[in-house]
Amino acid sequence: MKYRAKIEVSLKPGHSDPEGETASRLLKELGYTVEAVGVSKVYTIFLEAQTPVDAKAKAEDMCKRLLANPTKDNYTIAIEEQK
Amino acid sequence: MKYRAKIEVSLKPGHSDPEGETASRLLKELGYTVEAVGVSKVYTIFLEAQTPVDAKAKAEDMCKRLLANPTKDNYTIAIEEQK
Repeated sequence: MKYRAKIEVSLKPGHSDPEGETASRLLKELGYTVEAVGVSKVYTIFLEAQTPVDAKAKAEDMCKRLLANPTKDNYTIAIEEQK
Repeated sequence: MKYRAKIEVSLKPGHSDPEGETASRLLKELGYTVEAVGVSKVYTIFLEAQTPVDAKAKAEDMCKRLLANPTKDNYTIAIEEQK
């Protein structure tokens, strides 16, 4: 079966997010009332797996081995079956 | 009222995504059966607005003026009210 995993990797609270701070400053300069801006990254991965549970386990494994840095990143995984 | 806008900015189809291609290659080297990997960016913005519709209009405006490049980017906006 084919699955689509959407993995969002974001910074853990307390880690500096220069890209978010820059976006926040620029949006304020453009006149918007924004309080805070955070920037995270989404990996959309099309993968083969037996079941949704298996797909999620694989995606989690990918995060641990490659996509997320356990020291500074949090991640969330959403799995969707593909036709 | 306070709202949280989640803006996902992704590449339009056909645009090269070197970061996604590199992630795809590395995941294959690690032994995963992946078909394609796309990388997009999510801006989580806490902003002031009158209504959800107003918040969405503001977020859309931010995309057009700063966050997304109309030539190469697509974007989606999700608005959530904050307590």
